[in-house]
Amino acid sequence: MAAGRELGIIGLGKMGGNMAERLRQGGIQVVGFDFSAEAVKRLTDAGSTGVSSLEDLVKNLSAPRAIWLMVPAGKPVDDTIAKLKPLMQKGDIFIDGGNSNYKDSQRRYHELEAEGFKFVDVGTSGGVWGLKEGYSMMIGGEEPVVESLRPIFEALAPGKDLGWGYMGPAGAGHFVKMVHNGIEYGMMQAYAEGFSIMGQKKELNLDLEKIAQVWRYGSVVRSWLLDLTADALKKDPGLEDLEAYVEDSGEGRWTVMEAIDLNISAPVITESLIRRIRSREENNFTDRMLAIMRNAFGGHAVKKD
Amino acid sequence: MAAGRELGIIGLGKMGGNMAERLRQGGIQVVGFDFSAEAVKRLTDAGSTGVSSLEDLVKNLSAPRAIWLMVPAGKPVDDTIAKLKPLMQKGDIFIDGGNSNYKDSQRRYHELEAEGFKFVDVGTSGGVWGLKEGYSMMIGGEEPVVESLRPIFEALAPGKDLGWGYMGPAGAGHFVKMVHNGIEYGMMQAYAEGFSIMGQKKELNLDLEKIAQVWRYGSVVRSWLLDLTADALKKDPGLEDLEAYVEDSGEGRWTVMEAIDLNISAPVITESLIRRIRSREENNFTDRMLAIMRNAFGGHAVKKD
Amino acid sequence: MAAGRELGIIGLGKMGGNMAERLRQGGIQVVGFDFSAEAVKRLTDAGSTGVSSLEDLVKNLSAPRAIWLMVPAGKPVDDTIAKLKPLMQKGDIFIDGGNSNYKDSQRRYHELEAEGFKFVDVGTSGGVWGLKEGYSMMIGGEEPVVESLRPIFEALAPGKDLGWGYMGPAGAGHFVKMVHNGIEYGMMQAYAEGFSIMGQKKELNLDLEKIAQVWRYGSVVRSWLLDLTADALKKDPGLEDLEAYVEDSGEGRWTVMEAIDLNISAPVITESLIRRIRSREENNFTDRMLAIMRNAFGGHAVKKD
Amino acid sequence: MAAGRELGIIGLGKMGGNMAERLRQGGIQVVGFDFSAEAVKRLTDAGSTGVSSLEDLVKNLSAPRAIWLMVPAGKPVDDTIAKLKPLMQKGDIFIDGGNSNYKDSQRRYHELEAEGFKFVDVGTSGGVWGLKEGYSMMIGGEEPVVESLRPIFEALAPGKDLGWGYMGPAGAGHFVKMVHNGIEYGMMQAYAEGFSIMGQKKELNLDLEKIAQVWRYGSVVRSWLLDLTADALKKDPGLEDLEAYVEDSGEGRWTVMEAIDLNISAPVITESLIRRIRSREENNFTDRMLAIMRNAFGGHAVKKD
Repeated sequence: MAAGRELGIIGLGKMGGNMAERLRQGGIQVVGFDFSAEAVKRLTDAGSTGVSSLEDLVKNLSAPRAIWLMVPAGKPVDDTIAKLKPLMQKGDIFIDGGNSNYKDSQRRYHELEAEGFKFVDVGTSGGVWGLKEGYSMMIGGEEPVVESLRPIFEALAPGKDLGWGYMGPAGAGHFVKMVHNGIEYGMMQAYAEGFSIMGQKKELNLDLEKIAQVWRYGSVVRSWLLDLTADALKKDPGLEDLEAYVEDSGEGRWTVMEAIDLNISAPVITESLIRRIRSREENNFTDRMLAIMRNAFGGHAVKKD
Repeated sequence: MAAGRELGIIGLGKMGGNMAERLRQGGIQVVGFDFSAEAVKRLTDAGSTGVSSLEDLVKNLSAPRAIWLMVPAGKPVDDTIAKLKPLMQKGDIFIDGGNSNYKDSQRRYHELEAEGFKFVDVGTSGGVWGLKEGYSMMIGGEEPVVESLRPIFEALAPGKDLGWGYMGPAGAGHFVKMVHNGIEYGMMQAYAEGFSIMGQKKELNLDLEKIAQVWRYGSVVRSWLLDLTADALKKDPGLEDLEAYVEDSGEGRWTVMEAIDLNISAPVITESLIRRIRSREENNFTDRMLAIMRNAFGGHAVKKD
Repeated sequence: MAAGRELGIIGLGKMGGNMAERLRQGGIQVVGFDFSAEAVKRLTDAGSTGVSSLEDLVKNLSAPRAIWLMVPAGKPVDDTIAKLKPLMQKGDIFIDGGNSNYKDSQRRYHELEAEGFKFVDVGTSGGVWGLKEGYSMMIGGEEPVVESLRPIFEALAPGKDLGWGYMGPAGAGHFVKMVHNGIEYGMMQAYAEGFSIMGQKKELNLDLEKIAQVWRYGSVVRSWLLDLTADALKKDPGLEDLEAYVEDSGEGRWTVMEAIDLNISAPVITESLIRRIRSREENNFTDRMLAIMRNAFGGHAVKKD
Repeated sequence: MAAGRELGIIGLGKMGGNMAERLRQGGIQVVGFDFSAEAVKRLTDAGSTGVSSLEDLVKNLSAPRAIWLMVPAGKPVDDTIAKLKPLMQKGDIFIDGGNSNYKDSQRRYHELEAEGFKFVDVGTSGGVWGLKEGYSMMIGGEEPVVESLRPIFEALAPGKDLGWGYMGPAGAGHFVKMVHNGIEYGMMQAYAEGFSIMGQKKELNLDLEKIAQVWRYGSVVRSWLLDLTADALKKDPGLEDLEAYVEDSGEGRWTVMEAIDLNISAPVITESLIRRIRSREENNFTDRMLAIMRNAFGGHAVKKD
């Protein structure tokens, strides 16, 4: 069986494991590898082919092979490609479905192309909900190669012709996904600020979960993120036990830097990133410096630790 | 017929006219007034009762009357209430469904309550789509009064129990709607920045409409606003004929000021407002001053008009 | 002795006390009142006239009297004016040298003017350094009235013709002072961010105090605030004992709201205010909501308290 | 004569030419080269040694040579070093006084060090005013090498021990200068916003130049930038003929990116950069997209070009 009806997957974690299962349900023959024997077993138990080495992975696929990498961005992607190359043949396809920087994807495409391999970059959105609802996929690479993988994208996507598309040359997939995440930061921050304002209006004693539920239908701000937010507020209305600590995953900061490089003003996406960074700063030096300046010129009191 | 099964509406424009029609379709008896004879005729033609004076409006309703004001925020609301009061009876209900400042709604509630009238404030979202999809309504006032109007809200809403809710005491409806719009500004700005970045990445030649379509299914940023954006990009992919000029309607700036008053940091909603203000500034003085400063200390060239 | 060579001062705290002393040194006859007997004694010990009641204050001044209020903005100003009015005569001058909102100053001018009194608003900058270096004064009111007080302004200012000026009609003084403080917020934040960045660049092991000292001479960012900052860093290089907690005094937020009202985009002054507000938010709800959203769509871990 | 009492300078433009002259006045023997014969002649006319080739430049200096590069950042610096190296000896010192990225300076140091050369990076501030007032210099490199150049820095600086200093290892000079410029952006933007707000308050008819003059003495916002601003407003009170177009020179955007890399939140420096980028965007796509979104959900009018 050739590319398009079967797929090798490397990385069977939260994302990769679910994708393998959705592919299997969609009639794609999946051969999966993970360093975790447990993850491999889960795959096998579900009815796909789990293997315990890259050699076995490649052996279980027929040329031209398509192997989907679902490993952490950066060095792990380069390392995995380096280990796979000696095992593979010209014309085989590497698919990077992780959160790689689009510049890395452009570089990898050129490196692999020079050696006769194919490379496709897939920005994948959908998170833990993808197994059930399908994954949104933004795809970069050579169009005929992408087209040869159509059955795979159709199986992963929310619908045959929905939620996936060819975006352009190598890197285009990860570029669009990067901006997607930048927008995501901005939307999340907008909602979170709004709910904070409402929560602080103590005199009105507003019910944040109820508001989120009302807004889900008919309002201008209805969205999937709001659906999830309503659900989270239902489970924990005051978000009492959480720390006010927000990670960022890379794409947000890449979007901000790309905007600067392109000379596009993007204040809201940028602020959203800055605010996440701020959430992780403790005993902020900037603020202590402001306090000491106020003291220095105005004699204003400072708080001592 | 009493409050709940019939409704007077003042203001039959884009919003009010559509709401009247949705109510009629939902089995509510509507009596409508507008200064525009044409708008009144449209209502009558559609099968509701159009009248040409406030006196006739009140006469055509049975006590306790409910009259929905759909007039511009500010003075027009006060003026209309002032004209209506002599015509109405104790126990009658004023409903302000427009974009009033919540502080005005709190004031009006207290003024009307002192004279024996009822007042309900309804933040209404849904725009030109409300007729078809229903209106999201955030409602403030005395809960029994709101409850007495339930059939009206059920008819207007996207579903019997969907998209509307009692938010709290007078003013709560307009407060929540105000914040809703602040969030809306932030979401819009996030999308717009993201699409700008992608449009500027000329080397990838990205198709913005296609991206919007892909994101509508399965992605984290899917939303109703994105659905509309995809549609707008389909009609005019480059948005060529538009001016880069963005109005703001009041709620956004009220949200920003409220956040400051409440000591809640809301950088993204605030930036979204600032950016709209910026879009309307011509031959910006701030930027000219930066240019002349750079010239003054560094001898950097300035552009002359 | 008439207005211009003698002055009543109400409020002999940090600011008022120092101003009284600078006036005395400048040859102005000062009569001062404060609720604190200790503050009055300090004034008397220094060689001016301290009094223990408003009646005595007025009695010790000859018409047309000039009385400088150095009391907290808001109600205290109105209360003090109300108590003084019955004791004073038409033509007497009220001077508000505090941090009042300019709209209050405009209102007070009109109220006092209708009763035959004069009113002058003075935005005063200089803080604890004013006694030694002089006060910068931005003055609003009727120009002839301001002119009649010239010797007082000359004595308080850094130089006879330096650092003070007539700005325009009533309110103009406090308006300009308000914007002055908005700019001050922005400058402080710019410095503080820069020093934070440098402090975080651990590999270069930069000496922040030394940098501040170097920049004081010849650099584009040299300023009085930098002089103070260099001094503060000398005393406490790591600002170790301070809390990262920054108050704001009113003028900053008024500037932000005024900018919005005037439709001027002022992102940096606004951000500076937001950042101060942020410094006072604990266990931030916005950030907790972002964390729970990330968990909801991506399964990203959250930190529990 | 050895390093410290004589200096080769490459680049005799606005900055380099003035620095050569200040050095000459300070008793340093200057040998200067520029591609412009006119610039070389100006140097010779002023009493220094102008040469027309790099060979002659090197020949006219005695080992260990010190050559100060005042050429545009980036490739020109690398090219000039490449051309000079074959002409120079081990132990000779390259000084980069331009606006190079500190990472390039770190790289150049290591490359040159491996070949036996010395490298010093000098962040230089002072612009067109440096000849008269002296240059602020932030210096990175090996401390003994920097020390050997002391007479040169003393001659260029505003005072023997003022306005210059050793900042740390190679790159530290340009790093500190980079942040200096980031702060400069923030300060400029703060002033410019403040003056814009005041200029827009038409009812008060404020005199912006007068305000700037008043603030120069005794106020908290007094600074050298304000001195220049007051002067610029004197020459052209309304800044009428200028375009609202602001360049940025590199250091600002590097500061923003460095802050992100270091996980320091720097909203004001960042906004200042974004605002400059915004000043150069024409017929803004972001704003057009906001306009079409408002039209799509609310039927709000859009402006057509």
